[in-house]
Amino acid sequence: VALPAGVLTQEVNRVLEDPAIEIVVELVGGTTVAKEFILRALRAGKAVVTANKALLAKFGGELFAAAEKGGADLYYEASVGGGIPIIKALREGLAANRFHAIIGILNGTCNYILTRMEQEGAPFAEVLKAAQAAGYAEANPALDVDGIDTAHKATILASLAFGEWFRLEQMHVEGIREVALQDIQYAATLGYRIKLLAIIREAGGQVQLRVHPALIPARSLLGTVDGVFNAVLVNGEPVGTTLYYGRGAGRDATASAVVADILDVGRNLAGGSRRRIPAFRHHRAFQDVLPASEIRSRYYLRFQVQDRPGVLALIAGVFGQHSISIASVTQKEAAAPSVPIVILTHEAREADMQAALAELRGFEEVTEKPVLLRIEELP
Amino acid sequence: VALPAGVLTQEVNRVLEDPAIEIVVELVGGTTVAKEFILRALRAGKAVVTANKALLAKFGGELFAAAEKGGADLYYEASVGGGIPIIKALREGLAANRFHAIIGILNGTCNYILTRMEQEGAPFAEVLKAAQAAGYAEANPALDVDGIDTAHKATILASLAFGEWFRLEQMHVEGIREVALQDIQYAATLGYRIKLLAIIREAGGQVQLRVHPALIPARSLLGTVDGVFNAVLVNGEPVGTTLYYGRGAGRDATASAVVADILDVGRNLAGGSRRRIPAFRHHRAFQDVLPASEIRSRYYLRFQVQDRPGVLALIAGVFGQHSISIASVTQKEAAAPSVPIVILTHEAREADMQAALAELRGFEEVTEKPVLLRIEELP
Repeated sequence: VALPAGVLTQEVNRVLEDPAIEIVVELVGGTTVAKEFILRALRAGKAVVTANKALLAKFGGELFAAAEKGGADLYYEASVGGGIPIIKALREGLAANRFHAIIGILNGTCNYILTRMEQEGAPFAEVLKAAQAAGYAEANPALDVDGIDTAHKATILASLAFGEWFRLEQMHVEGIREVALQDIQYAATLGYRIKLLAIIREAGGQVQLRVHPALIPARSLLGTVDGVFNAVLVNGEPVGTTLYYGRGAGRDATASAVVADILDVGRNLAGGSRRRIPAFRHHRAFQDVLPASEIRSRYYLRFQVQDRPGVLALIAGVFGQHSISIASVTQKEAAAPSVPIVILTHEAREADMQAALAELRGFEEVTEKPVLLRIEELP
Repeated sequence: VALPAGVLTQEVNRVLEDPAIEIVVELVGGTTVAKEFILRALRAGKAVVTANKALLAKFGGELFAAAEKGGADLYYEASVGGGIPIIKALREGLAANRFHAIIGILNGTCNYILTRMEQEGAPFAEVLKAAQAAGYAEANPALDVDGIDTAHKATILASLAFGEWFRLEQMHVEGIREVALQDIQYAATLGYRIKLLAIIREAGGQVQLRVHPALIPARSLLGTVDGVFNAVLVNGEPVGTTLYYGRGAGRDATASAVVADILDVGRNLAGGSRRRIPAFRHHRAFQDVLPASEIRSRYYLRFQVQDRPGVLALIAGVFGQHSISIASVTQKEAAAPSVPIVILTHEAREADMQAALAELRGFEEVTEKPVLLRIEELP
């Protein structure tokens, strides 16, 4: 594409103050100048296309209000799932549905690290280092590996699904730094894979909002998603379970989503149908956000225990007192003084599980902090 | 929903001739009265929403011309992939892309039958009978098991991707009646699963349009799609590989897609932006349809041969003369006078493969018609 002279500029005011410019695409990132640029554009009635998930997650309410006041479009397909048209699917393709569950692998860096840990039998720190060298992880990986980026995206998906712009603080967020190679390997022998999931569920009017590593069946579609790819499972009524998969980041995937948004906005401008789809529509389809302590789930637990009689009985006894029922136990013969025991439980309440683990940590038979991972049942 | 008296009618003219009715939803099916109803509605300027893949595949050109002339919308999300918003993804979400490959499991009945054959170790005829009893297959299953329904849907996807309304006769179509349990089992031991695929590919301006059973890796996403579910893999530039999964049929999934279309049409009517997205846009992004004989593919072959020295050398020799290179051979010890040999080849030209097989059938050492299945490389 040959651009006429003078079209490219580094002076943002030449864009924001030019009445002939109708669409502003923000790919600056961050939550400071990007926010200012978007607000100024919307107030001037310009349509905005953005990929800025952090900004939307933090200041969505403010941006949507400005878009409404300015009578302007605000599109953000590239903010979640890279090139996967998941925002369009939720807002348009599945518009007839009530959503029950959205479960997503939304961060390519984390999925790449977990995939390589399994494939190479290498620990987290080593794989992270290699990922940084290869450009798949940032020098400061906190946003990715601590689950924050996933939580930003989950906030957007949950908000679209349930009609209330959620705050990041309403999410229960855990990252993947604590995921041990040992647990990836135990999970594999049990038919599971460990993925960092965004889990958004609704049942009985109560919404669950959480981001954490979880075991899912290796033979499930989500369990088959490897490397930097993203996937989003959406369960709705009447459509049932659907799934959307693609590259979650990178300039090509992002470009695909950004250009699709520009075309949508362009059609709106050309057809005189601005704000055909509002940037966000409040329609609160739930009552409460369920506290993390009340969430019910199956659990994977790994205890490091003294190799002597009665230890399993001790654990089972404490579990029983806390209404936790054991589904399976794996304990291998070992020559060491301390051995691992892997336990899968039936569904239990998070608060009960945490209380049981706190109690068990008081026993000298349990030699290390127990490992807790949740097993996510996929709809 | 409580409808006012007189709203429900069985007299189609009361709908088609009422100027107050702006949207007509056709869920009659078939290609006779459905065609007439849709044409009359479009000519009267009414928007039409339909799920009728057979009608679109056969008379798409005529219907689109009528929609254009009538200035009317024609939406058909439910015609492919049930509740999966794949038409919207191709036309809107991925609008920035050039498409290189679309590979889909588009018929739930066939996928259900193949899945059950593998899971139960039962032959085609037995599983078909059970599927008919359970309501998963029609009394006359030809449309499904002979690949016609998949071909109808593939015609629609290919046309949207490449901007030319293709005719069914341009497709190479094979169904699943010939898929033997034995081959499903051999494929499984080799790490593959057999699926009925719609394969739409473009390379060097030439388009491939085919529907046939094919081996795909068991650990791929498409290979994980079981039962009545559908999935469509879309490879485009710049987005790369994306995939869309969901229930391919049934009233709930269809309702989800039909209502989404009604909402889209409703927004167009309310916003004064009729035909915001044309029913079909001609933009021919290819030169030719590649004849089936010119398609290059890897092959799975099963020969039933006399158990005596030199037979493998005979087959390998004929293959060599036809530029076909063998990748792997599986022959188990057997006490029978005739034994199966399973051969996977490297990429070869279909015409060469057919010539080699014709030649081999002339030898008395080859006791039965060889089984040929293609191995599809997924992007």
